Amino acid sequence: MLQLINERAEIVQEIGHLKEKQGTKRFDPVREREMLDKIVAHNHGPFDDNVVRHLFKEIFKASLELQEEDKNKQLLVSRKRHPEDTIVKVGDVEVGRKPVMIAGPCSVETEEQVDTVAKGLAEQGIKLIRGGAFKPRTSPYDFQGLGIEGLKILRKVADRYGLKVVSEIVNPADIEMATQYVDVIQLGARNMQNFELLKAAGQVKTPVLLKRGLAATIEEFLFAAEYIVSRGNNQVILVERGIRTYEKWTRNTLDILAVPILKQESHLPVLVDISHSAGRKDIAIPIAKAALAAGADGIMVEVHPDPAVALSDANQQLNLDQFNELMTALKGSQLL
Amino acid sequence: MLQLINERAEIVQEIGHLKEKQGTKRFDPVREREMLDKIVAHNHGPFDDNVVRHLFKEIFKASLELQEEDKNKQLLVSRKRHPEDTIVKVGDVEVGRKPVMIAGPCSVETEEQVDTVAKGLAEQGIKLIRGGAFKPRTSPYDFQGLGIEGLKILRKVADRYGLKVVSEIVNPADIEMATQYVDVIQLGARNMQNFELLKAAGQVKTPVLLKRGLAATIEEFLFAAEYIVSRGNNQVILVERGIRTYEKWTRNTLDILAVPILKQESHLPVLVDISHSAGRKDIAIPIAKAALAAGADGIMVEVHPDPAVALSDANQQLNLDQFNELMTALKGSQLL
Amino acid sequence: MLQLINERAEIVQEIGHLKEKQGTKRFDPVREREMLDKIVAHNHGPFDDNVVRHLFKEIFKASLELQEEDKNKQLLVSRKRHPEDTIVKVGDVEVGRKPVMIAGPCSVETEEQVDTVAKGLAEQGIKLIRGGAFKPRTSPYDFQGLGIEGLKILRKVADRYGLKVVSEIVNPADIEMATQYVDVIQLGARNMQNFELLKAAGQVKTPVLLKRGLAATIEEFLFAAEYIVSRGNNQVILVERGIRTYEKWTRNTLDILAVPILKQESHLPVLVDISHSAGRKDIAIPIAKAALAAGADGIMVEVHPDPAVALSDANQQLNLDQFNELMTALKGSQLL
Amino acid sequence: MLQLINERAEIVQEIGHLKEKQGTKRFDPVREREMLDKIVAHNHGPFDDNVVRHLFKEIFKASLELQEEDKNKQLLVSRKRHPEDTIVKVGDVEVGRKPVMIAGPCSVETEEQVDTVAKGLAEQGIKLIRGGAFKPRTSPYDFQGLGIEGLKILRKVADRYGLKVVSEIVNPADIEMATQYVDVIQLGARNMQNFELLKAAGQVKTPVLLKRGLAATIEEFLFAAEYIVSRGNNQVILVERGIRTYEKWTRNTLDILAVPILKQESHLPVLVDISHSAGRKDIAIPIAKAALAAGADGIMVEVHPDPAVALSDANQQLNLDQFNELMTALKGSQLL
Repeated sequence: MLQLINERAEIVQEIGHLKEKQGTKRFDPVREREMLDKIVAHNHGPFDDNVVRHLFKEIFKASLELQEEDKNKQLLVSRKRHPEDTIVKVGDVEVGRKPVMIAGPCSVETEEQVDTVAKGLAEQGIKLIRGGAFKPRTSPYDFQGLGIEGLKILRKVADRYGLKVVSEIVNPADIEMATQYVDVIQLGARNMQNFELLKAAGQVKTPVLLKRGLAATIEEFLFAAEYIVSRGNNQVILVERGIRTYEKWTRNTLDILAVPILKQESHLPVLVDISHSAGRKDIAIPIAKAALAAGADGIMVEVHPDPAVALSDANQQLNLDQFNELMTALKGSQLL
Repeated sequence: MLQLINERAEIVQEIGHLKEKQGTKRFDPVREREMLDKIVAHNHGPFDDNVVRHLFKEIFKASLELQEEDKNKQLLVSRKRHPEDTIVKVGDVEVGRKPVMIAGPCSVETEEQVDTVAKGLAEQGIKLIRGGAFKPRTSPYDFQGLGIEGLKILRKVADRYGLKVVSEIVNPADIEMATQYVDVIQLGARNMQNFELLKAAGQVKTPVLLKRGLAATIEEFLFAAEYIVSRGNNQVILVERGIRTYEKWTRNTLDILAVPILKQESHLPVLVDISHSAGRKDIAIPIAKAALAAGADGIMVEVHPDPAVALSDANQQLNLDQFNELMTALKGSQLL
Repeated sequence: MLQLINERAEIVQEIGHLKEKQGTKRFDPVREREMLDKIVAHNHGPFDDNVVRHLFKEIFKASLELQEEDKNKQLLVSRKRHPEDTIVKVGDVEVGRKPVMIAGPCSVETEEQVDTVAKGLAEQGIKLIRGGAFKPRTSPYDFQGLGIEGLKILRKVADRYGLKVVSEIVNPADIEMATQYVDVIQLGARNMQNFELLKAAGQVKTPVLLKRGLAATIEEFLFAAEYIVSRGNNQVILVERGIRTYEKWTRNTLDILAVPILKQESHLPVLVDISHSAGRKDIAIPIAKAALAAGADGIMVEVHPDPAVALSDANQQLNLDQFNELMTALKGSQLL
Repeated sequence: MLQLINERAEIVQEIGHLKEKQGTKRFDPVREREMLDKIVAHNHGPFDDNVVRHLFKEIFKASLELQEEDKNKQLLVSRKRHPEDTIVKVGDVEVGRKPVMIAGPCSVETEEQVDTVAKGLAEQGIKLIRGGAFKPRTSPYDFQGLGIEGLKILRKVADRYGLKVVSEIVNPADIEMATQYVDVIQLGARNMQNFELLKAAGQVKTPVLLKRGLAATIEEFLFAAEYIVSRGNNQVILVERGIRTYEKWTRNTLDILAVPILKQESHLPVLVDISHSAGRKDIAIPIAKAALAAGADGIMVEVHPDPAVALSDANQQLNLDQFNELMTALKGSQLL
């Protein structure tokens, strides 16, 4: 039986090569149905027709995968396809080489605010500042960010302290413009399956930080990254930021299992956003430790000079003292 | 290839009959592993070893199912096994024949309270009263129900109005006792996988109303019912009562799709609990209509003479006027 | 105490009017914190400081809402703001007046395919055809739709049978173009919080059909609609299409409770997509009945001449015979 | 206003003391409703009646909490009530003092099987062996465990190697018996809200290991522990074992955030079950590290001499070599 199955596979492989030359689609559902009908017509049991249909569908599927093996069976983001770790270079920071910290305010509000945070980061040796200029907000009446003005503030202050800028872009039409101001284009959770935005981000050379969607599966997350990489930009950083569940004591449920699974399935660096996942800062230190112990390539955290008056996400942003405590704890545990 | 596969199946079937006579287990994972190793050792491609392993596992699985087909492949609760609807008889009420209404207070509090509701139900022609005597409550400090006293009140008042009693039992040791007071033993959502309780309920003749667990799959729900039916009690009513999701504007998310699926997969009657699913009474009428339109065999609803002062679930219980409105709406739409 | 609270409210209201004239922001978190600190400094118990802080925050919040009452407290999409049903006009179809049916293939594949379906719909008296030209697909290697060619096919065939076209747009830059070909712009589940797309759709006059996000709350859904309406386009149709849960026997869990809640909270019409919610067609009839019984203003369903060979969503599309059965069932039950 | 609010609070506090002496219930919803009606009747705006009602309800609630403060406001399991860590003593193992490892087969199958595992554990210096004798299984046709015979095998083998036994009990009637054989009574995820079982476990002195329910909130988990502790048994170990979500690449989603939250909210020790959460063993090492880094007091893991032939949970059990690798990794990282 094994021999017959493999003989069939060889024939299928040859047909595949032929079809490729002719530009014909490899998977042909009409023809598959006809073949199944023919096989079932010859079935005299004891397996009933449905079982036979199922077994041959499996055999067909395996054959089809064989045809596609050298092509897209293995995604570009897959570690099977590319076993070495991808290192994302942001200036002289190499994300994926050793753990990094990305910190900064939820929203860019004023130059003073950004300056205070940037100074604090620089004192801790942090190289990457984040800050939101285009804010995707649930309500149209909430603060929507300063837009391009925000990007300019970020750039100016970052340059002052020798930092690199990470900021979210929400419109495909803005990707090109953004490359002038930011060093890493962030694509947010709500836009993880905004495929037009992914495609646009795939067409520039600027590194992309892609957040997992609110309720995206790990598989969908990898496919979203594939949209970017398949367009030519392989500088992609994945960020686990919690998924939506019924639990109410946290904003989201941090899917820590996703970290080692993503590292195993993909060669891309994986960070953990400890602010959006928990939505509360009292457990920032143990979460950050857990993320790094699980193999994350770094941490994202929101830091604001005075979180109580922040224009967004007041509850989850650390102030600078709290941020310094976090850094001390992580350095002390030798995880960072 | 088909011929070979079916020849193999015949041999397997004969081996199955032999094993059965000898009392040997049909599925033998060690032997299966040895066989797979042997087959893979003979594999020379183009399928790689994993694909061959997968295909033969499928063939083995199909063969095994063939062996088990006449036995437990099809559950007792499955419609494939038993195509006709099961009618659960509670006095002269036939649940599964035409839509029924089960109503009553969340908790039994006093005889007066139960009497007021019972009178209201009787006036509407309702035959089944529900009321909680043993209350599974999240906190040990919440009202835990009147226990056996509650059952006695229910029995007494129900007899006064010619009603049948539905009440929850939570301890396997109480099932036997309960049959003296109740006409239908309710097993609650938190106990759907309390298998000892299910087994105990399977050993009496009293009908059982089984609620779907807080986050149970439809498959697990059917298996839970199978625990009862496989012990000898086939008088089981299934109740969809909402599942736990992230949505906050309702207490649970009513899984309306489960209603036609359960009706299709199983021969048991299926009700919908419109109180615990929504956790709010302002949408009682459209939900009840939707449930019946989806094919439910009836509705469960909480009714209390004065919900604002109820000892539990104040927000979701209808008062008698609201209940009468619900009945009028359902009768008007000819769904009940 | 009541008197004092109301006196405070009057003063706050006056301050609000003043601030408005001056263009000052009404909510001032720094000042609020100072006031709370001052109040707590005067607290001598027995309430502890946290309780006092909480109570006064409630009083402040109520006061703030008072200031905003005449403005955006009540969303434009809210029924409190606009008690009458919004009727969305698509040609001579009035969505929201009486139940409508929107049907058609998941993807536009060929003119023949669309023509076959359109003919079938016209024979049933259906006025609205749906079909995907821009397909947001999980994998970049899946069929991405025919794009503008697809829209042209839809338009041509629809005109042939006097139908109106509903089709999804995924890029803000395409909204303007789309208005030439489609009668209703569909915004898909993955784009429910693609706020740039929502804003663009708010700036045209073409009706918009907005699907609930994969794991969006009802509240987020209404806010997404508010993005469109607040930009000037009040012709919005809401579509419940199931939410993501752990249940595996259905593609999504249809949140039927959302239907009466949306109807109660908002004046916009609400449809139910019975194809994407269930992801299986064997229960199409009971779901459609349940949706209409729950108060939905219509049904969306996928229909394909030969679902087995469809380029997407083969399992959930009805063929024309099945569609005719569905129509017969709905007309028979007088729900449509 | 503050003064008036506090004066009211004092009066309420006195009334509370009086009610307590008289044995009257503190919360009286009828009286609360009457008071609210009276207050609203005196309301002349600008706050509308609903706002006034809401504000006074908040004030009433705060007052009620004041009454209950010295009583059950703070649960027995709460760290506010009992700030020091509870150390659960199992022989000379002190759970909560330093990280522990609990390992062993999913199900007890034979004495040889348990002996092989026990020997491996003893060689690693592990003191606590787990093994299932009463197995709560989804299907009534799955292997249900050896029952009391299983407990006897565990006891015998554990004594041979100086180990302590952890095993699940599923029937309240078996708790007393179990104390003869096991050193720690495990209560499983499916029984987390089997309150009769919790109560029974609260009445013995044997330590209890309580697993979080399939879809339980952290709050419900703490209340479940409170059922045990409030009956007199404070030797309770909490186990996070993953919650049910839509993600399919893992059996459950490990809620790592629950670990620091539980440690913060409660004084009870908290373990993480790395087998049931992930349901796959390829990521055992990073998960275990993450759990300990997050502050867990230990790890639970399934170990079987030959997982491929295990009667349950074949995919997630480590073999002894894999277990030794895990131990080496944890000791190397100084987390254990």
